[in-house]
Amino acid sequence: MVQSFQRRGLMLVLSSPSGAGKSSIAAALLKSDPNVVLSVSATTRSPRPGESEGVHYYFVDVSRFEKMKADGAFLESAKVFDNYYGTPRDHVETKLRDAKDVLFDIDWQGTRQLRENARDDLVSIFILPPSMQELERRLRGRGQDNEDVVQKRMARAADEMSHWSEYDYVLVNRDIEKTIAQVQNILAAERMKRARLIGLGDFVKNI
Amino acid sequence: MVQSFQRRGLMLVLSSPSGAGKSSIAAALLKSDPNVVLSVSATTRSPRPGESEGVHYYFVDVSRFEKMKADGAFLESAKVFDNYYGTPRDHVETKLRDAKDVLFDIDWQGTRQLRENARDDLVSIFILPPSMQELERRLRGRGQDNEDVVQKRMARAADEMSHWSEYDYVLVNRDIEKTIAQVQNILAAERMKRARLIGLGDFVKNI
Repeated sequence: MVQSFQRRGLMLVLSSPSGAGKSSIAAALLKSDPNVVLSVSATTRSPRPGESEGVHYYFVDVSRFEKMKADGAFLESAKVFDNYYGTPRDHVETKLRDAKDVLFDIDWQGTRQLRENARDDLVSIFILPPSMQELERRLRGRGQDNEDVVQKRMARAADEMSHWSEYDYVLVNRDIEKTIAQVQNILAAERMKRARLIGLGDFVKNI
Repeated sequence: MVQSFQRRGLMLVLSSPSGAGKSSIAAALLKSDPNVVLSVSATTRSPRPGESEGVHYYFVDVSRFEKMKADGAFLESAKVFDNYYGTPRDHVETKLRDAKDVLFDIDWQGTRQLRENARDDLVSIFILPPSMQELERRLRGRGQDNEDVVQKRMARAADEMSHWSEYDYVLVNRDIEKTIAQVQNILAAERMKRARLIGLGDFVKNI
């Protein structure tokens, strides 16, 4: 008698303008939940000190990257300055089959590609700041950017935020602990979706 | 400046074979959450002692019921023995606009009609018993049915359970408190869905 069933992992996308809290939420999820893993991208840029193959990135050369892209090996890809980045389909598929939820910290353009290539596995959450004033205050508060960079981030934030309506869920991050709890709540519910449960038909037959 | 937005309520369907825990879950939701209200059906049967118009049912005669049905006034309807039952669209729409979540205790046939008539507002959860033996034990444990009725309920349970795959979520009720928490979790997450948030576009514009 079959007495249990498995679930397929999901792809969790968090998008937000820089400073809206996305990184804190991602860090909290990864720390609190062993079933959440970070997506590992392939990139053509060189490893930085401390970066390991297969942990932080898959390091590939340009011709390899282009071949992979032509073969449809990426769920999404982008060129940032002179470097290519892409999410290998195989890497994600292995995690999903292993009931791991793969976390993506990508913008609306990457999310749009994921939606086209992996709609059924995708759960997308857009995090809004409570106000632009608060966003600017947080960006300055981090103290990591000079005035010029802060202004560029604010301009980019408006563009990013104009895509909120493409996401499954939209949260306003007024309180980081509350927002983390909301994301955990969404994750827990999405895991219970019938479409993600594997072997449930056999379970019911043998119930 | 717009600083908040509203949400549209949702329609929450709980289906399960008799004895799988549906009524306990519904009672717990109604008790713990003032935003959850029970759907009120129209019926052609006579009021029983203690039943009030608009609270337990909307009592209508057969010709009125048939007129309403012909006019598309019901989200779902059924004939049970010699009586008609139907969910008035207006009643539900008023609640949804008032950000109330409307709870339905209906079978797979009613759920199928709701899905056809109100797909975007519907969240459907199927509750499975951990085993048929356990289901039978619970039915006998209630002490409200004689042997004949228990056997009929068990036969009907198999039919009802064969429709699990039409639901958005499937839960196995091994522990009633845990299952109630799971349903509350699903409800909380579904409320955060972008598609249910009203005025979010204006909120973002004025952010």
